[in-house]
This record gives sequence, structure tokens and C-alpha cells, in this order.
Amino acid sequence: MINNKRFIAVIGGGQCSKEEAKLAEEVGRELARQGAILVCGGLGGVMEAACKGASSQGGITIGILPGDSRQTANPYIQIPIVTGMGYARNITVVKSAQAVIAIGGNYGTLSEIAHALQSGIPVIGLNTWSLSRNGQPDDSIILAQSPAEAVNKALSLAKNR
Amino acid sequence: MINNKRFIAVIGGGQCSKEEAKLAEEVGRELARQGAILVCGGLGGVMEAACKGASSQGGITIGILPGDSRQTANPYIQIPIVTGMGYARNITVVKSAQAVIAIGGNYGTLSEIAHALQSGIPVIGLNTWSLSRNGQPDDSIILAQSPAEAVNKALSLAKNR
Amino acid sequence: MINNKRFIAVIGGGQCSKEEAKLAEEVGRELARQGAILVCGGLGGVMEAACKGASSQGGITIGILPGDSRQTANPYIQIPIVTGMGYARNITVVKSAQAVIAIGGNYGTLSEIAHALQSGIPVIGLNTWSLSRNGQPDDSIILAQSPAEAVNKALSLAKNR
Amino acid sequence: MINNKRFIAVIGGGQCSKEEAKLAEEVGRELARQGAILVCGGLGGVMEAACKGASSQGGITIGILPGDSRQTANPYIQIPIVTGMGYARNITVVKSAQAVIAIGGNYGTLSEIAHALQSGIPVIGLNTWSLSRNGQPDDSIILAQSPAEAVNKALSLAKNR
Repeated sequence: MINNKRFIAVIGGGQCSKEEAKLAEEVGRELARQGAILVCGGLGGVMEAACKGASSQGGITIGILPGDSRQTANPYIQIPIVTGMGYARNITVVKSAQAVIAIGGNYGTLSEIAHALQSGIPVIGLNTWSLSRNGQPDDSIILAQSPAEAVNKALSLAKNR
Repeated sequence: MINNKRFIAVIGGGQCSKEEAKLAEEVGRELARQGAILVCGGLGGVMEAACKGASSQGGITIGILPGDSRQTANPYIQIPIVTGMGYARNITVVKSAQAVIAIGGNYGTLSEIAHALQSGIPVIGLNTWSLSRNGQPDDSIILAQSPAEAVNKALSLAKNR
Repeated sequence: MINNKRFIAVIGGGQCSKEEAKLAEEVGRELARQGAILVCGGLGGVMEAACKGASSQGGITIGILPGDSRQTANPYIQIPIVTGMGYARNITVVKSAQAVIAIGGNYGTLSEIAHALQSGIPVIGLNTWSLSRNGQPDDSIILAQSPAEAVNKALSLAKNR
Repeated sequence: MINNKRFIAVIGGGQCSKEEAKLAEEVGRELARQGAILVCGGLGGVMEAACKGASSQGGITIGILPGDSRQTANPYIQIPIVTGMGYARNITVVKSAQAVIAIGGNYGTLSEIAHALQSGIPVIGLNTWSLSRNGQPDDSIILAQSPAEAVNKALSLAKNR
């Protein structure tokens, strides 16, 4: 692995609010400042904002794309992985990370949260889904109140899986 | 398609409580009585109980397996599909169905619910996950109080996608 | 499994010559006559011709589709499996079969032949690819001279994997 | 993309002969010298030898792993991508590259050659498979006589897909 750097996924909608984009960009910046490698689904919205932030600090960005062409990656992706597998690539996004930061998000993001939790990969949430099962709250998503807190929690929980 | 029969997925844990198994078995029986084809992940727990119910009424059962061998299918699977793709097969389970009935379930089931909702496939829930997003309840999972109600809702909402 | 029936894949081009279509249709008919279940990629060309043949004899046909919609299946598919995984579904086509019959075919068919041989699944060839490795012929593809011979070889070599 | 660097896949057996390892290591070295990024399946044999060569020259190596853990990567992989999809990951290996160099190899390698050719990605061969279809040679695999020639051909044919 690159100098034992941590691989952290940032997940969220391919379209997002301005507020979510701001959070994502700051998460990306902070990940890069702390030397982590950013993994994401490679497209727009939260993914692009996070990559923009990471790039601004010289960070490395990996985009695991659903389609058949690297041309679909957002402009801040340095390492495009072209899966050709559609949204089945969501499972690869989270399995390639040692911790996951979820920002906002729609059902695709929820599927990634679920795949991460199924695989025992820590999930940190910023304004994202919350879950309950059979009427009981499920507290597996670790809440953060700010990008810096999300990044710190992700890095401290990241496992060498 | 077989005489325009409906394809309905039953999803839930590979291990489950007795109560969940009872619900799943009755869902399977009712699906078969109403002429639907049962799609599932092919393994034990809720999947096996549903297939047992469907088989008892002469229904057809399809198991979309994660591993490399048809020998891993539960004994009530008539059509084993061997994906070789691990839990990426979850997306195929739901995309092969016209509606999904979720019974109990862990994070794998949650990923299937999310993939279904992302694809616009109706999800009926029996004692399963509930969701909220950014603090607002998400009512996309349609609640049912009984196996019969779940099956009726699934069949009436099933779309010819 | 359905009355211990054999699952046999028929693979070949999504577009094909008239001669290939004729071979495929006869393969489909003979598989159905002998009680086998036909597995294929669900699209046109060789796949459709084989399914047409099987259907004419009351056989069961399974189509493992690359895309996101069951509407893409050829009209003779009874069990559409919607993978949502693009051509990664090729591996599922062959793993779901106990033997594979290849008719003509392009590079997609070659990938299926390779995945089958990698998994130890017998491949019978009718006017299809032949292989050599480092200058030495590889005889793993079992040649057949007619549809009936291909079906007989496939059924006798089919393993209960 | 990283400074417009080329992404070139090196494919071959997870176990290989000493001669193949020597070829692969030199291919890896030459790719790194010419500034290309090496993509592979992340495991042993040809993959490991190529990564060893690239690493010795300061090159970047990406390993697209079939399993569920980054721990399965060979020691020279800098960017492990954990697909969780078994050998369906073969399609991602080739789609993530702009050209492919095949060295020796078994059926898994053949499946990667086929997926690459299906996707229009150039394949350069060093002591690897050769193909004929319906009795006619298929010359799609571009032959090279040495690692340097293979790398030069790969880089000159690499497309910005």
C-alpha cells in the first residue's frame, strides 16, 4: 500500500445540495491533509466535491465507476477504475475502503452503507440516513457533526482489513 | 415469461427467528397459491422458509446464489442461478423481481431494500428495517401487517419493468 | 432442482448467421426433447434461436440478462434474470450450467468459454473458437459435428457441481 | 487522471514459470520507466512479477482483487481495489486499462483477453494464447517478441477510452 496510507471512501448522491457539497469538499480537503487516499464512486455531486477538496490539497483520488468508460469520471479523479458492472460497483467502493464517510445521499448511498456494515467496515455519517430495525434504533452509523470530526473518526476507526 | 406470471422476491436473513420463518413460509405459500414465481438469494433462513412454503403449494422457486456452486442452494430451490459474484448478487435478486417482500433481515437485506428502491422496484416490509434521512422519515417501504397483506400488496404493485 | 433436470448453457453471438441460427434452434429443440433446461444470455442471435427451438418442444428457458430490464429478453425466455451487471453476467451464464454448448460466437462467447473452462465446466463446440497456448493446441473445447452430438455430449458430461 | 499517464494492464497466470516471471518483471520495469501506471489482478505469479518490476523503478501499481480483503494483494500493490466479486473482476481489470499485455496465462487470462477484445481494448501477447474461429486464424492479439516491444506497442496503441 502507498506508504501505509489509509483508504477512506466518501459516499453520497451523484447530485447534492450546496450544503452537502460544502461538507464533502471539506471532508476531501481534510482527508488529503491527513494523508489519506480518497475512494469514491467517481461521479458528480458529493463524489466530485470531495475529490475537488482532496485535489486542492494534493491528495490522491480513486473513482470506481459504474460504466464502461473512464470519460465518465469527474475531473478530479486521478485513478479511474472502470468496472463495467453498473451499480454492483457500490460494493467495490466500500470494500476498497477501511472506513466510509456518508454525506447525505439517496438509495444508492444507502446500499453502500448497508454493504459496508455487512462487511464490518465502519461508517461515519454526516446528515445522512438513520436506521431502525423492527422498531429498534440501529446505531451502527457513527454520527459526526462536522467534516473534521468525520475524518478524525474515520481515520481512527480504519482497520487494516 | 411463464404465462405472464409475476416474479416476486422474498428477502431476509440467512439466519432468522422462528417467527420470521413462520412469516416467510406463509408468504411463500401465498405467493404460490396466487401463481407468482418466488425469487430469492437461494440460501437458508427466511429464503429457505419462503421456498419451503412455495414448494408446498407447487410454486416455482429461483435462488440467485452468491457462491460458485449450486450445491449451496437450499433444498427447495428449483432454479439455482450460480452468480460467482458474492454479495454483489444482491442487486440481481431485486432486479429480477417486479416487487420485493422484506421480512426481518440484517444489513444484507438492507442493501437489497436500497438497491430495489434505487431501481424503482416496490418494497413491502414485514417486521423489517425502517428508514429516515437527514432526520425525516422515508416511507418508501410499504408496511404490511400479515403475509397475506404483503403478498397482495406485492402483486398489485408489481410492474412489468 | 426441477426433477433433477440438467441445466445446459447455449452460448453464441447476439447476432449470427442463418446457419448458426439453424444449428442453435436444433440444439434447443434437442435439449428440450431430452428434458434439459436451457440457460443463456437472454438476448438475440444464437440465444434466441436456441430458445425458440426449446420452446417449440415445451422446454424451459432461462435468460441471464446484462441490463436493467426484463424487457430486453428475447420472446422465448420464460425465466428472465436481470443482473444489472453488464457483460460481467457472462460468468453467471456459464456457472449456472452443468455443461456449455458454444455455437459460432464472437469475443463475448470466447469470454464465456474461458470462464467455463476456468471453472471446470465442460464446453462442447459447434463451429466455434479453437485455442492454442504458447504454440500448443489446447483441446479443452470438445468438438461436435451436429446439434444432436453436441447435446448428447453435453448431457453425458454435465456434472452435478 | 494522474498527469495524463497511461494505464496498462498486465495479465497472466497467478502461478507462472520462471521465464514468464522474468518477462513480466521486465514488462513492469519498462512500463514504470515510461511513466505508465500498471493495472493487474493483484495476486501472484505474472501479476506479482510485473508489480515487482514496476516498483523497482518507482512505478504505480493497482491490484483489482477478486476477494474480500486487501490482505490478499501481492506485496508490490500500492492501490488495492477490493471487488468482492470473484473472477467477475477480470472484466474490471481490462476495462480499467487502455491497453493490455498478456504473458502466458491460463483460462482466466483467456477470459481477460476476450473481455478486452470485446471492449475494443488492444491486447499485446507475449507467449500467450492464440485464437482461431471457425477454422480461420484471428489475429486480434498483437504479437510481441520482447518485453520492450510489448510495452512500446501497448503505449502506442493505448486509447483514451
